[in-house]
Amino acid sequence: MKNILLKVEYDGTAYKGWQTQRLKSVGNLPVKAVTIQETIEAALATILQKKISIIGSGRTDSGVHAQEQVANFKVNTDIPISRIKKSLNSLLPNDIVIKKIKYVDSNFHARFSAKSKIYRYTILNRDYGSAFLRNHTFQCSLPLDVALMRAEAKQLKGKHDFRSFQASDKKLRSSIRTIKRVSVKKEEDLIFIDIEADGFLYNMVRNIAGTLIEIGRGRMPAGTMKKLLEIKDRTFAGPTAAALGLCLIKVKY
Amino acid sequence: MKNILLKVEYDGTAYKGWQTQRLKSVGNLPVKAVTIQETIEAALATILQKKISIIGSGRTDSGVHAQEQVANFKVNTDIPISRIKKSLNSLLPNDIVIKKIKYVDSNFHARFSAKSKIYRYTILNRDYGSAFLRNHTFQCSLPLDVALMRAEAKQLKGKHDFRSFQASDKKLRSSIRTIKRVSVKKEEDLIFIDIEADGFLYNMVRNIAGTLIEIGRGRMPAGTMKKLLEIKDRTFAGPTAAALGLCLIKVKY
Repeated sequence: MKNILLKVEYDGTAYKGWQTQRLKSVGNLPVKAVTIQETIEAALATILQKKISIIGSGRTDSGVHAQEQVANFKVNTDIPISRIKKSLNSLLPNDIVIKKIKYVDSNFHARFSAKSKIYRYTILNRDYGSAFLRNHTFQCSLPLDVALMRAEAKQLKGKHDFRSFQASDKKLRSSIRTIKRVSVKKEEDLIFIDIEADGFLYNMVRNIAGTLIEIGRGRMPAGTMKKLLEIKDRTFAGPTAAALGLCLIKVKY
Repeated sequence: MKNILLKVEYDGTAYKGWQTQRLKSVGNLPVKAVTIQETIEAALATILQKKISIIGSGRTDSGVHAQEQVANFKVNTDIPISRIKKSLNSLLPNDIVIKKIKYVDSNFHARFSAKSKIYRYTILNRDYGSAFLRNHTFQCSLPLDVALMRAEAKQLKGKHDFRSFQASDKKLRSSIRTIKRVSVKKEEDLIFIDIEADGFLYNMVRNIAGTLIEIGRGRMPAGTMKKLLEIKDRTFAGPTAAALGLCLIKVKY
C-alpha cells in the first residue's frame, strides 16, 4: 500500500464544504451535497478504478476556501504519482486544484499528524464591494479600529479554553486549544486576521473574526477578549462572521 | 444636464463584453446578450426612472475584465451622486462594482477625452491551474523565456503601424498607434504583460500577448516583433491569446 499526500487549493464558493455528506432528501428527491472531498474521491475512483477514501486535515465549511488543504489516501497502484496529479487536475473542476502530490510514510495521517493550522479571515473594509474578491472577502462598510482589533486579538495568544468561540458541541469535548500566532494587518482596504493554532474548534475562527469586527466598530469594548476567555460562554461573543471571508492557508506537520 | 463619470470594476467572466449588443435570435427565441453596459444602463434606468445611455472609454470583449473602466452619461436629476452610487452598487450584480462617481465638465467624453489606456495580460506559467485565478489568468504549462519576451515587447514601444496585431478591419482605418510603456514582469508563477498606449486596435493586446507567448516558448525567434511591425500582416503574428487573461487596468485623461 502506498500512502499518498495531496496539497489542494480550492475556491469553496460552489461547494457544501470539504467533508462528504450523507444523502439528504428534499421531498421525494434524494439530494447529495457536493463537497470538495467527494469531488476529489470521484476523480480518484476514475483514475485508480477503485473506491478511494481520502482523509483531510480537517473539514472546512460551506463557502470556505483553502489555499493549501492537505489530504492523504492509501492505495495499491503502479500509476506514477506525477500521472495521478496530471489526471486529477484534468478531471477536477477548475475551482479545485491539486498543487502537489507525494508519497509519505505509511503512518502519516492528514488529520492526526497535523501540528498546526493557519487560517486567514479577510475583511474588505469600504463602502462598496470588489468584483474580483466578492467571493473571498467579507465586506464591512463601517469604519473599523484596526489597532484595537489587533490589541484584542493578541489577548487570544497562548493556551486557553476557547469555549466562548465554539459553536455548540453537545459532546462536550475539551475546548482547550493553543493559539501560536495571531495577527491583524491592514493593507489598503483589506484587513487580514491570521491565526495559527494547534487545532480549531468548530466555527472558532469565524466567531473570533465576528467578535473582532464588533470590537472594531465600537460595539464591544477593549478588554472583551480577555473577558470572553474567562466567561467561557458562546452567547457573550460576537456573531459568526460569514464563511466566504475564511481561507485555510496552510497545515503544518 | 449633469455629466456624470463612473469608474467601474468588473469580472467579465459572465458577460458578453462591455458593449450593448443587438437582439440575436436563436431559432424563434429572441436572445439578448448580457453585457456590462446594458446591465449598468438597466440599473440606472431603475434609479433615475428614465432610459440612460452610457458612454464607455471603449469596449472590452467577452470574458475580459476591468479593474477600472470609465464611463459617463448625461442626465437631469436632483438625486445626489453619492446616492446614485449606493443605489447602483445595491442593484448591480456583485461582479460589477461602481468604485467612484463624480460630476465632470459637460464636454467630458469617456471615449474621446481618453489620453491613454493601460491593459494587463496575465499568464499563469506552471503545469497546474489556480482555483482562485482560474478566470483571470491564461495558464501556460510550457517554460517561457521571460527575458526574451521582455526584450521583444520593448521593440513595440513608440509610434508604429500595428496592423500585424489587428483583428481584420474591413473599414481600413488607420492602424497607427503609440505604445507609451510596455513591460513584462514575472512574480512567482505569474507573468504580467502591461501595455499603455494612446489607443488600441481590436484584439491588439491579445494578439501581442499571443505572439509573446510563441516567442517565449521558442516557436518564434528574437527579432519577430521588429519584423511584424515592418510586415504589417496579421497572418504572420501569433494567435490571439484567450480573453480571460486580459484586464483593463486604467484609463488616463
